[in-house]
This record gives sequence, structure tokens and C-alpha cells, in this order.
Amino acid sequence: MTQRNEHTRMTSAEGSISSALVVGSGLIGTSVALALVRRGVVVHLTDRDPVAVRRAADLGAGTPDPPPSQVDLAVVAVSPSATATVVAGLLAGNVAATVVDTAGVKAGILREVAAVVGAAPHFVGTHPMAGRERSGPGAARADLFEGRPWVLTPGAADARSLSRAHLLVSLCGGLAVEMDATAHDAAVALVSHVPQVAASIVAARLAEGEDTALGLTGQGLRDVTRVAASDPDLWVDVLVANAEPVARILAELRQDVDAVVHALQDIVEDPDDPEWARTSLREVLLRGNAGRARLPGKHGGRSTAYAVVPVVVSDRPGELARLVNDVGAAGVNIEDLRIEHSPGQAVGLVELAVTPEAETQVTAALTALGWVVHAEKA
Amino acid sequence: MTQRNEHTRMTSAEGSISSALVVGSGLIGTSVALALVRRGVVVHLTDRDPVAVRRAADLGAGTPDPPPSQVDLAVVAVSPSATATVVAGLLAGNVAATVVDTAGVKAGILREVAAVVGAAPHFVGTHPMAGRERSGPGAARADLFEGRPWVLTPGAADARSLSRAHLLVSLCGGLAVEMDATAHDAAVALVSHVPQVAASIVAARLAEGEDTALGLTGQGLRDVTRVAASDPDLWVDVLVANAEPVARILAELRQDVDAVVHALQDIVEDPDDPEWARTSLREVLLRGNAGRARLPGKHGGRSTAYAVVPVVVSDRPGELARLVNDVGAAGVNIEDLRIEHSPGQAVGLVELAVTPEAETQVTAALTALGWVVHAEKA
Repeated sequence: MTQRNEHTRMTSAEGSISSALVVGSGLIGTSVALALVRRGVVVHLTDRDPVAVRRAADLGAGTPDPPPSQVDLAVVAVSPSATATVVAGLLAGNVAATVVDTAGVKAGILREVAAVVGAAPHFVGTHPMAGRERSGPGAARADLFEGRPWVLTPGAADARSLSRAHLLVSLCGGLAVEMDATAHDAAVALVSHVPQVAASIVAARLAEGEDTALGLTGQGLRDVTRVAASDPDLWVDVLVANAEPVARILAELRQDVDAVVHALQDIVEDPDDPEWARTSLREVLLRGNAGRARLPGKHGGRSTAYAVVPVVVSDRPGELARLVNDVGAAGVNIEDLRIEHSPGQAVGLVELAVTPEAETQVTAALTALGWVVHAEKA
Repeated sequence: MTQRNEHTRMTSAEGSISSALVVGSGLIGTSVALALVRRGVVVHLTDRDPVAVRRAADLGAGTPDPPPSQVDLAVVAVSPSATATVVAGLLAGNVAATVVDTAGVKAGILREVAAVVGAAPHFVGTHPMAGRERSGPGAARADLFEGRPWVLTPGAADARSLSRAHLLVSLCGGLAVEMDATAHDAAVALVSHVPQVAASIVAARLAEGEDTALGLTGQGLRDVTRVAASDPDLWVDVLVANAEPVARILAELRQDVDAVVHALQDIVEDPDDPEWARTSLREVLLRGNAGRARLPGKHGGRSTAYAVVPVVVSDRPGELARLVNDVGAAGVNIEDLRIEHSPGQAVGLVELAVTPEAETQVTAALTALGWVVHAEKA
């Protein structure tokens, strides 16, 4: 996953990108364009919406003028449902030496493109694993892909086009990961599409909830439902394009929901003998523990058990700065930071994540400076 | 929800808490004990595990000696399944003038207590809405309840005991909310128990996932599954105690899962005519948007649309401090802060949440100081 330097060397020798056409001036297209412009590439922008193109051009993402001749690379960043058609058109028109798309689902697009133009040696399917809840050119940023995995599904691509796709990833600061298209689609169904559907379905329960009930909301519910704020039209496209693996994993998920519902109904009907039901509930929760523990942590490694140092901070300007300053002065790096919300009260709790070795040091230093620190030590 | 001052006045006149017995030296019991000790209450600690009691006492949460005479208040903070028995025992033994419990589910406990001792004028069921993924006395903190809702379910309590329960909440810095026990249980099923089960079930999918797939994990999956790291034994107890409303809401949730699975299977079987399926998927996602939008924001108010200012920060000690400092120097208060993880790369993105009015100001100030800021403006 981190062979970026190697690829950069290889591709610099074999191909180059001095001109590009970016089709689609949304979040992804405009972010790619911004990154390429920053690296000296001449970028041409196009979108079916002239306002979006103008906005992207105003942000410095390139020119709305059409390219005068064949470009080195065309990047297709339109909705998943329109992607194959646009890619096939660009290939048929010989508009670019290499065409890549950026849609979040890959196998169907490879198949559709092949159905129109046959084997496509100049096409590489790609998927930058970056995004935001916000969309449109205004949300774009040149560093959107910085340090993020960017999947390449080579398909029938020739070496030159594949190398150019690697160069694109490298110019955008992404981390190239080559995968088979079908394996990619199953992977994103698991780590992205099914969690999105689950978050939406949990959040859907709240649409009709009582105000009093919602007043008891804590951080857990906020976290579980955060991605439920995403764009429904985009997500319908994604789910339709990846229907098979998402349906398969959701059907497995439904079996667990069934198991929990049955266990709970069993308890309601026979509250005096809950042992079978308890075992069944516990088994699901334990599998949840096991799955959660497998998530990779910061910097691509296995989840590191950072020590969490909770510090009481009053909700006044300057307090957070003073805290972060004091931690820095103690020579400790903050690995992560969470501000716990305190509904109705002007006191917050800041949880500093630090390496386990630094915990004692930072706790002592902050306590000496008068901070109220709650060490985890018992 | 915020009538704390009024209640404090009332209860100060009617009753007082100068001595307390805290049964259970876990996270909640020890945190209550720490808060009471800080306010001058003489606290006696007991737990079936002598090690836990000693640890809590060492942390300054009170004395392991039994009370010499009746205490003003007994706080029961044991597992939900043991709560009713302990409460009934304390009431029968006249150990305290008022007994409260702290279990996360209320109706069943009221019912069980009444079954043993009849109407219980000296008992108030309560539920402090605070917790952590960690447990045990070592994770306790005196400010755990600071600014958090703390539900009181009066049941058959007399005015004096109810007023003492209000005083307890006030001494711990919580925000008292009186609710009917059944309404409370339905509310926590919605905002806490069902989201917990859903997070565990999504995380359970990852237990068998490929390493390559998990390598594509983003912040969305991390957020959705965070609470899946919680203690299974505690949660089995909670789910068993609140089986009826959790089963009801989960059964509704299952209908949405069914609808999505059916829509996706329909697309797999007939990919050329996805219109009905698209409508069905979109409807679920839209309800998810609507539910998510109803969550209250920081300080108990409706979700405020903070402006998010993304700033590129290198992963070196002192950089975060420098940033937070510069924001403070610009006279802007940071409402929330998120460090986006950048797998495999030494550059991070810090998202500062500020009031919409402060956005332009902080962006200009940081840019002038050389920070790379990505304003949301289009």
C-alpha cells in the first residue's frame, strides 16, 4: 500500500501528464483538478452544469476552454450511473491517451465500457477513498486525497495507461492500491456502503421520535448516525451500482438483527428463563467487539491503544489553546483529540490521545499547571 | 430540562444529604461517590468485590467502613439485573432515608421493587445519562455527570425523597429531567440501546472481513462502530432489562433493512428497470437525513450549523498547539475540533468548527499566518 515512491520513479520514466481533461466539476473532479494544477498540469474542465464549471475555474482548478488537441489524461468524475457512458465516449473519440474514472464502484463500469468499446487498453478504473459529507466544487480541496488509499483496478489497461494512473495518484498525494474490480466492490460494500445504509436506517428511527427522547441523545448516537447526513441521490447511485455485494452483506446483517429481535421477544414472553437469549445476545456483542478491534488505526497500522487523558476545560476562548500549548511544552505529541459536548453547561471535557509512554508525563505536567486531569490509572 | 436552580432551592429547604452509602464501586458508583465527597458528604462504599471498594477508597471516593447509623441517601450502582434486589434489601433494612438506583432501564426495576416491598415512598429510580467505553473505579471521575441529563422517574416516591434525589443530581452537576419510567425506557431504547445493537451488528461483519478490505476503512466506519467496543456483559443486562421497546424498535429497523435488501435484489435480478428500487432506497436515505437533522447540538440546543474550517497540519509535535494558539489570538472560540486521520502519511487535516460569523475572520487570520486553509466558500 505504500509503494508510492517506487511507482513515481517508474511512471516518470514511462509516461507523463502535462495536460488533462477533468469531466465533472463536483467535489472529486474539482479536487483532482486543483491537485493537478498545483503540480503544473494544464487542466481543462467540463461539466453538464456550466455554473459548476465556472465555479471550479474561479477556484483555480483549470480552464473551461476545451482542449485544443488530445490530452495525456482524462479523469471522469461524474455520477456512478453516468460514468460508463462518459468513459466510452472519451475512448471512442480518442480525446485522451489514457482515461480513468473515479466512481466508487468498479466491476459494473468495466463491464459496461467493455460492452461498448470492447477491450479498453487505455482505460483504468480507479477509486480515490476520500470524500466529505459536503459536495460540489466549493467543498473541493487540493489535498483531499493526501495520504488516502486510492484503488486502481487495472482491467485490460496496458502498462503505459496503468503507469499514468499511478502517476495521477502520486500527483494527488494518494496511496495507490491495485485490486481486482470485484474484490474492490466487495471491500467497499463492507467498509463503506453497508455502514452507510445502517447509519441511515438507525437515523431513520429518529425521524418520528419524541423531543424528550431526543433530548437524552449522547455522543454514541451522534457517532453512529454521522454519515446519515450524506447526499441521498449520490448514495442511491452507489447502492444501485454495487447492489449484489451490498445486498449479500445486508442479508447477513439482517440475520443478526433477527437473532437479537428473537432473543428479546423470547425474554418478553418468558422473562424467567433468559439464559438462551442472554447467550445469543452476548454472542452478537462479542462478534461486534472482535470486528471493531480489527479496524486499522492512524497511519495505516493496526489500531494502537493510545492512552486517553481526559482534561476538564472551561468553554471560554483561549482555554483549548492554553491546554494544547501546555501539552506541547511538556514535549508530548497529541495523537488525537476529542471535545466532549456538555449540553447546557459551560464546561467541556477534552480527551487527549497520547502514546501510552507519554501518559504519566503529560498527566503530571498538566496537573502541576493546575489542570483537572482524570488519569485512567486505578 | 434546565430547572436545576429552582430544584436546588427547593431541595435545600426540604432535605439534605450529609451522609451517603454508595453500593457498587464501578464507574458510575465511584464517580457519584467522588462527586459527593467533593461536596462534603460523608460517603460509605460497598461492593461485592473487596478489591473494587479498596481501589475506590484509595481514589478518595469514601470509606469502606459500614455506616454507623441510617444514612440520608443510598445510591445503588450495581448491574441492572441485581439492582431491584439490592434496592429492596436496603428499603427493608431501613438503611437509608432515601434510596436511589442508577440503572439504565427503569420500569422493570420499579415493578420488581414494588413486588417485594409494595409502594416505596423512599425510593426514586434514576438514570444518569453518562458513561464511557471504559469501566471500573479507575475510569471514574467526579465530573462524569457535569452538564449531562440525569433522568428521575418518581414512581411512588414522596416529596422528601424526590427532593433528595434532585439534590443528588445537583451535587453531581447533572441536569435533572423528570420522566415516566416507561417513557424513559422507550427513549433510551431509541437513542442508546438500538444504536448500540446496530453498531455491534455492523462491526460484527468486520470480524471475518479480508485485511485488504479493512485497509480501505475510512472515518465513517470508525464512527459508526465506535460504541461496538463496549462491555458485552453490561449490555446483555441492559438489553434483557429493556427487551420490549428495544425489540419493537429493532423490528421496525428490520423492516427498513428488508426494504433495502429487496430493492437491491430487485436490481440484481432486473438491472434494466431500477426505478421502483431507486425510489425505495432514496426514501430510506431521506428518512435518515431527517432523523439525523433532529439531533440536538452542543449545549442542549438544536444542532447549530457551525462553519467547518479545514486546516492542513503536519504531524509534528507543536503544530496543533501553534494552530490552536493562532486561532485564539484571532479572538475566535473553537466550538469543536476533529483531527482527520491520514493513514500512511505524516500530514493531518484539522477541522475546526467555529460559529458561522467567525469563519471569514479565522480563515483570513490563519491564511495570513501561512496556514493552508480550505474555506467552504464557493
